[in-house]
Amino acid sequence: MKTVSQYAQMIEASISALPLEKQPTGLYSPIHYALEAGGKRLRPVLTLSVSDALGCNPEKAINQAIGIEMFHNFTLLHDDVMDKADVRRGRPTVHRKYSESTAILSGDAMLTLAGSLIMKECPDCKLRTVLDLFNKTAIEIYEGQQYDMDFETRSDVTTEEYLEMIRLKTSVLLGCSCAMGAIIADADDKTITSFYSFGEKLGLSFQLKDDWLDTYGNPETFGKAIGGDIANEKKTWLLITAMAEDRSGVLSEVIGKNIAADQKIDKVRGVYDSLNLSERCRELEERFAKDAIDSLNTVNMSMEAKEYFTNLALNSLKRTK
Amino acid sequence: MKTVSQYAQMIEASISALPLEKQPTGLYSPIHYALEAGGKRLRPVLTLSVSDALGCNPEKAINQAIGIEMFHNFTLLHDDVMDKADVRRGRPTVHRKYSESTAILSGDAMLTLAGSLIMKECPDCKLRTVLDLFNKTAIEIYEGQQYDMDFETRSDVTTEEYLEMIRLKTSVLLGCSCAMGAIIADADDKTITSFYSFGEKLGLSFQLKDDWLDTYGNPETFGKAIGGDIANEKKTWLLITAMAEDRSGVLSEVIGKNIAADQKIDKVRGVYDSLNLSERCRELEERFAKDAIDSLNTVNMSMEAKEYFTNLALNSLKRTK
Repeated sequence: MKTVSQYAQMIEASISALPLEKQPTGLYSPIHYALEAGGKRLRPVLTLSVSDALGCNPEKAINQAIGIEMFHNFTLLHDDVMDKADVRRGRPTVHRKYSESTAILSGDAMLTLAGSLIMKECPDCKLRTVLDLFNKTAIEIYEGQQYDMDFETRSDVTTEEYLEMIRLKTSVLLGCSCAMGAIIADADDKTITSFYSFGEKLGLSFQLKDDWLDTYGNPETFGKAIGGDIANEKKTWLLITAMAEDRSGVLSEVIGKNIAADQKIDKVRGVYDSLNLSERCRELEERFAKDAIDSLNTVNMSMEAKEYFTNLALNSLKRTK
Repeated sequence: MKTVSQYAQMIEASISALPLEKQPTGLYSPIHYALEAGGKRLRPVLTLSVSDALGCNPEKAINQAIGIEMFHNFTLLHDDVMDKADVRRGRPTVHRKYSESTAILSGDAMLTLAGSLIMKECPDCKLRTVLDLFNKTAIEIYEGQQYDMDFETRSDVTTEEYLEMIRLKTSVLLGCSCAMGAIIADADDKTITSFYSFGEKLGLSFQLKDDWLDTYGNPETFGKAIGGDIANEKKTWLLITAMAEDRSGVLSEVIGKNIAADQKIDKVRGVYDSLNLSERCRELEERFAKDAIDSLNTVNMSMEAKEYFTNLALNSLKRTK
């Protein structure tokens, strides 16, 4: 096994080699802009490392890995238009830097290019399996995004619905990334399913940690202002649980009301604290991380590989940004 | 061979049977809305009829046919957002009826569903050929749309550039539709290429006819107001040619100037008439229609089939809407 950052370097090198210096530049240069911004490259790292763990040269899965990264970045371009987000990874979003039309059209091209990359150098005998997984995952992600938008105007969202939404919107792509590496490595169905489950559970832990950091993170290491989710009344696990359990009446005094953001953040966090939600959210993150690790119990791989994936799940719990 | 309307009925039946009554309705019902609007179904009709002409039961190409129709409608959803269009086929566009986010996200789902349909019941041995053609075509269409948007802010567009833009934006999908039917029918490469060329040339003839009708159509049969392209100063073959050849100075007095639409239409059409552009545009349409018909000269098929495709090209020239 290599280290996470070694896999990430392989990804960066392959992304840099993509032929994006093409005409019309109005279509291709925003794609280059979106991809060069980096990010954790978690999804393609999963694909390469699963492949490696199962005894297959990770180079064999590199096109599928960067296809998934291309797809992920396509969803960011379009989500940012839908959410009217101004900043992504510390830089203007594509629709702010260029235009909304550009973000839509270049995003479309990224979705098609992602599909082409997934096919590239994929053995013909695996083509249908790989593309069926990719297409099924993509549809689930759109469904998750739709539920997320639907939740904005609903006040009766349950935590079960929330967890299903983040499973669709975020986790299935991590499951797909892992399963893709296993398919390319010629794994049997049980191993593919185990790795899918690892990625899926890791994704749930990851998203809950993201939500937790937005409220309880350290402002010095988080990189963004703390409390943004509360200020925007984003229906996270924390807020949904608080809305269901709060008997103090404080939430109904501030949610949906025109109150200064810092006051809103203080009051809502007070409710969270009274319900011990920071600790309970962390317990849930840990439960999903443990589920992720347990998914791999029956997979036949080296101790080194098991440790690698265990550490991935544990490090997700410890991260500060 | 069946008639065009019989193939179109097969398409309608298959589209009606698509499982789109699904949750979340915010994602799926706009897809249903977009597809039920009908339209000519020209692209899938081409796929089915080429397949039939080559001795293959057209039912075998039905999924590829409606996959292409799904793709075409996806491009309409996103183009309408980019163009801020209010009306499509006599009804509010998806982003006007629902929201811009809906048009983006449901469009994305349509692109992925199109890819899945293209794969459905496609023999494994043809899967890569079929998907490579589909993905290449999709990328060319995005490039065409980008050139079209680029042309809006340019005053030096040549007719060659315009013809290449409409080839990318419109014609390649007709070429793809025909080639897809030929691939499913187990045709040899030469036949596939011949049918691709037929569709491509038909598309050029078709688009020029669209442009011509917008200026010279009969208001009673055209269905839209005449002169919309001129009022919007859309860079069609007519306007580009006029801008290159007009020595009267009339165009520079009205293009880019704040003048009532009906006056602008009158003056620009006057310039077109002085340059004999109506007739010259029709000659170009005819040339491309003839090229389309000639593409099929060497294809081995029944006289009935040759007549069918010849009539398709000739009827495109005669249409009034």
